[in-house]
Amino acid sequence: MKASWIAVDWGTTNFRAFLMSDTGECLDKIQQAKGLLSVDQDQFPQVFDELISRWNGIYGHLPVIMAGMVGSQQGWCEVPYVHTPASAQDLANNIHSVDLLSGNKAKIVSGVRCINAFGNPEVMRGEEIQLIGLGEIIKCDFNAILFGTHSKNAYWCDGKIESYSTVMTGELYSLLVNHSILGKSLPEQVFNKDVFIKGVEIGNKYPLNHVLFSARTFKLFDDVQDTNIHTYISGLLIGHEFIISNRLNKLYLVGSQKLASNYALALEHLNIEFDVIDGDECFLKGMTKIYSKDESNEY
Amino acid sequence: MKASWIAVDWGTTNFRAFLMSDTGECLDKIQQAKGLLSVDQDQFPQVFDELISRWNGIYGHLPVIMAGMVGSQQGWCEVPYVHTPASAQDLANNIHSVDLLSGNKAKIVSGVRCINAFGNPEVMRGEEIQLIGLGEIIKCDFNAILFGTHSKNAYWCDGKIESYSTVMTGELYSLLVNHSILGKSLPEQVFNKDVFIKGVEIGNKYPLNHVLFSARTFKLFDDVQDTNIHTYISGLLIGHEFIISNRLNKLYLVGSQKLASNYALALEHLNIEFDVIDGDECFLKGMTKIYSKDESNEY
Repeated sequence: MKASWIAVDWGTTNFRAFLMSDTGECLDKIQQAKGLLSVDQDQFPQVFDELISRWNGIYGHLPVIMAGMVGSQQGWCEVPYVHTPASAQDLANNIHSVDLLSGNKAKIVSGVRCINAFGNPEVMRGEEIQLIGLGEIIKCDFNAILFGTHSKNAYWCDGKIESYSTVMTGELYSLLVNHSILGKSLPEQVFNKDVFIKGVEIGNKYPLNHVLFSARTFKLFDDVQDTNIHTYISGLLIGHEFIISNRLNKLYLVGSQKLASNYALALEHLNIEFDVIDGDECFLKGMTKIYSKDESNEY
Repeated sequence: MKASWIAVDWGTTNFRAFLMSDTGECLDKIQQAKGLLSVDQDQFPQVFDELISRWNGIYGHLPVIMAGMVGSQQGWCEVPYVHTPASAQDLANNIHSVDLLSGNKAKIVSGVRCINAFGNPEVMRGEEIQLIGLGEIIKCDFNAILFGTHSKNAYWCDGKIESYSTVMTGELYSLLVNHSILGKSLPEQVFNKDVFIKGVEIGNKYPLNHVLFSARTFKLFDDVQDTNIHTYISGLLIGHEFIISNRLNKLYLVGSQKLASNYALALEHLNIEFDVIDGDECFLKGMTKIYSKDESNEY
């Protein structure tokens, strides 16, 4: 298979480039902890050139299409958000060009904004690609959770991202275990399934901040071992994420396998049908789709 | 008025002693940032003696009665919790003695535990005194919120602390503004009433972690100014605290005047009748009541 183009996921903390064949296969990958936070704003062309220099020598210039925070105010070039409902074609129509060191162009895909079910504005950069990719895989309407630091609960309808909302599950977990009284003075933590489910049940039933303190009192009365407190907090937060049930019959979990197992346990317990889909697979399917829809072809 | 006894509130961060008359008036006060965290566990008698040395010289030995975390595992002496329902007499019956440097005794009041409305265990040390005091002031059943780092939502019935639950409003606020992405890179913050009410409305209506991220997106779209983000987060969290309505007609707010004004704004907006009662007044009324009920009189 011939190397044909490059798909890039450039986020706040990581840079990942995928060498793609003309049939949408990934032939090679370059990954570095070289996210936006470690790049001066006028150095993006230089840094990009260095990051993919290994391929430049072999393949010469290939079309480059990028997504993620690289299109934000803090990125290479700010690309305005497309509003929902948003299809692959909408994203392709709103793609932006930036200049590479070589004089060629690279493309940056816009993010997607919406007003969520609570009437609040929402923004995403990067996850929209995974949703487009998942749409290619599923080929019907779906609900998906793109879990992580800021989990996105999305609804895909008629070939478009219809709406989504953000739940700060990952970040709140990190705050609580690292900085709160709940996470203080704990021994080394181990995962415990029963404790996780206990957290899921409580978090799924009651207002979050009215039950968080139980992570401390359960420990005090040995209802939860001090080695399982992180597990319990994780259960509370994931249970809380599913406190709203406005979904179709089946839920798709998109993300890393490791975290997926916790979500899977929670969903099994809550009797919600689900399937786990690899996040990178979705990303590459989505980028391939958008690349195919970009008719300007000026790379 | 004659100095008759000493009431002490000894918590994790602060030490406060009140010189009381035989008619329950506070004649003098000693306050120092000398909480449990800064006292070695075998040094309590020495530290106490130094802290109130100003009074020792004038009044000689006076009965001392203490409450707060001083009765916890990390304190002077661990005093077991009394279970709800708990009256002033129950607390007096379970008071513990410790030895002072002088050879005299001081008393430590127990904390109170319960199982809250969500089936989770709860503990308090210090707030039970304020509730006893509030019971003396109100003289009928009531709901009260003792707000602070860990806000206690309590129900007083038939002269006893019937039940309560803990909401981590103060701590979660501190985590979010100091350590989360929501609080990052903000200019100096000012309070704004409209923004606060906006937060209260949203926090009072929707699951907390499903709306927290709006503190970021509202800023992004200038719906909330970047100088009012702390205000908005405070509104969300206080609104969330009132998401459960299982209260009597009127709510009593106990705590410092400064924070009370935010709670008062929220309650006015939510059409909940309330009254603000000074926390120290409640504490001293509560200690006076318990002191009067302690029949052992061995000080």
